[in-house]
Amino acid sequence: MTKKIAVLPGDGIGPEIMDQAVKVLKALGENFEYEYADVGGVAYARHGHPLPEQTLALAKSADAVLFGAVGDFKYDTLERSLRPEQAILGLRKNLNLFANLRPAVCYPELVSASTLKPEVVSGLDLVIVRELTGDVYFGQPRGRRLSPDGAFKGAEEGFDTMRYSRPEIERIAHVGFRTAMQRKKHVTCVDKSNVLETSQLWREVVTEVSKSYPEVKLDYLYVDNAAMQLVRAPTTLDVVLTGNLFGDILSDEAAMLTGSIGMLASASLNEKGTGLFEPSHGSAPDIAGKNIANPIATVESAAMMLRYAFHMDEQADRVENAIKSVLAAGIRTGDIWSEGCRRVSCSEMGDAIRDAL
Amino acid sequence: MTKKIAVLPGDGIGPEIMDQAVKVLKALGENFEYEYADVGGVAYARHGHPLPEQTLALAKSADAVLFGAVGDFKYDTLERSLRPEQAILGLRKNLNLFANLRPAVCYPELVSASTLKPEVVSGLDLVIVRELTGDVYFGQPRGRRLSPDGAFKGAEEGFDTMRYSRPEIERIAHVGFRTAMQRKKHVTCVDKSNVLETSQLWREVVTEVSKSYPEVKLDYLYVDNAAMQLVRAPTTLDVVLTGNLFGDILSDEAAMLTGSIGMLASASLNEKGTGLFEPSHGSAPDIAGKNIANPIATVESAAMMLRYAFHMDEQADRVENAIKSVLAAGIRTGDIWSEGCRRVSCSEMGDAIRDAL
Ligand SMILES: CC(C)[C@H](C(=O)O)[C@@H](O)C(=O)O
Ligand SMILES: CC(C)[C@H](C(=O)O)[C@@H](O)C(=O)O
Repeated sequence: MTKKIAVLPGDGIGPEIMDQAVKVLKALGENFEYEYADVGGVAYARHGHPLPEQTLALAKSADAVLFGAVGDFKYDTLERSLRPEQAILGLRKNLNLFANLRPAVCYPELVSASTLKPEVVSGLDLVIVRELTGDVYFGQPRGRRLSPDGAFKGAEEGFDTMRYSRPEIERIAHVGFRTAMQRKKHVTCVDKSNVLETSQLWREVVTEVSKSYPEVKLDYLYVDNAAMQLVRAPTTLDVVLTGNLFGDILSDEAAMLTGSIGMLASASLNEKGTGLFEPSHGSAPDIAGKNIANPIATVESAAMMLRYAFHMDEQADRVENAIKSVLAAGIRTGDIWSEGCRRVSCSEMGDAIRDAL
Repeated sequence: MTKKIAVLPGDGIGPEIMDQAVKVLKALGENFEYEYADVGGVAYARHGHPLPEQTLALAKSADAVLFGAVGDFKYDTLERSLRPEQAILGLRKNLNLFANLRPAVCYPELVSASTLKPEVVSGLDLVIVRELTGDVYFGQPRGRRLSPDGAFKGAEEGFDTMRYSRPEIERIAHVGFRTAMQRKKHVTCVDKSNVLETSQLWREVVTEVSKSYPEVKLDYLYVDNAAMQLVRAPTTLDVVLTGNLFGDILSDEAAMLTGSIGMLASASLNEKGTGLFEPSHGSAPDIAGKNIANPIATVESAAMMLRYAFHMDEQADRVENAIKSVLAAGIRTGDIWSEGCRRVSCSEMGDAIRDAL
């Protein structure tokens, strides 16, 4: 059966890194159909909105979405509802992509690229399981108003609502525990339950769900402590289960620890198991169009798509092994290059991975 | 004129580290009066509440509060309103301590204690200016309810209100810019204004206030990016100006980077310029009563009190120089000990700093 892949390259380096992922996918010889659409700043420029209706319709009808990156300095002054990032939020909400998996892995060849000491990051292999459609990101009411009470009653204020309901926490907790069952069977629940009501319910429900996974060890960290532990001893973590806002912060911190942010991908899944797959890095407008970006995270996103959306584990393994063998052969884009390695362009890296399949 | 210092040692290692700070202060020969009161778990155990009325009254009447640390495993099962941390929140709110200054400094002698590479942390010297009485920590309404709308209408939910009003942002922004004027004249505003209404107002108001400080360079980071930059290039930061929740997370991350968390202090100030001074580390109940804790952060808190609450810059310098000379002499508690240094107990460290005055 043909699988339809919605390809949304986006802004900045998006198009060039996406080309490499599609090149590698095509070489697998599977029955995939690729449909392209505009997203982000480029979509705003061409259609007046960062997430045009036809793009959303394509994403909804596809078996999976491959997403490049969005954002560019030139859209920074637009009002927020038209800014490129709104496309990401709109896709998450409309496709109901509640489960974001962001692995942070320190590749052995790249240990020295981390700002952390080798002994602290080597062997690092954790995954942040972040809830993606709730929390203060989407809670209503929100806006501007005159302060209704408190010491500054009557002053202008900005406000948002943080909230999580029991079923929302349950479904992401199950994703977290199921993920742990396939890994080191260890879940760390991260919240701020010493201060927030939302976090108290979060911790309660995660604890309840854990009873269905007696083999999985569950522990808890307050988010401030989690931010410290990631720096102090990140290899003690396996699955970090957290809400939308804390997951946003911790997953970027974790990715940066590895020294491999150009190589890390993420999967955003819904209940049907389809989803959106994207690199963890941004659109890097400063190097766009120069054919020097690192496409590995996008190729890795394609591998995650094969695994999570299409259940093609064998093909996913092939792609991941190809990435590993290219790294082992000392082939590097500039961002991860070091003495003794061969420096290649973005498209040459794509070729190398394809050839290694 | 006599200055009245409210001394709140608290739980765990609180009493032993506080003893050293008071020992050093007494050796200055100034006209200080010390009044002790219970706070945290020990206050709950003795008076039924982590912040008893007489403790709050003392704190309000004092010229400054020296705070040790609170929290112990044995209070973890209490309902939240009786838990030790509530004492901290209660003191902040009741004393109107809206400005929290948390320096993160990498002491040259301790560069190797950091999990980051020496070249990444050496010279690190930033301060997080965190708003401390607003945000989702204190916003109303908050609680449990049946979800009023959305896809999970009717389900149990926990919710909190994130909010900041213009005058709250203005006053902390002024603290941030004034702090920068005494340092490297660089403020980084950290928020999540690509998603949150509260953050949009935050960024707007910080930008407005910056106009009164034309010498100070202002830049902006989203909080997820800030969590990355702290790991990638922390020495590029000077003053990080942020809200209560983001400040909680980033200040712990920054403190951990330095490898010196046993040495970092914080000041929480109100509009009158009095305030509360406490170490950035916790109560470490596992090592309490063993006379092995590192008292330097508490002695440093006393130095911050001298500087910020009493404007005794000369005495503050004396204390800080004493700490530096003790470190330079190779005297170390266990947590920061390394080959070739002399290992001392908590009270011996206090003696050494006093003697070095
Ligand atoms: C662009 C932004 C809205 C987004 C988020 O905050 O979720 C990004 O930081 C991410 O983590 O995917
Ligand atoms: C104990 C807790 C309530 C507190 C906070 O979240 O502010 C602590 O983490 C801190 O940073 O002082």
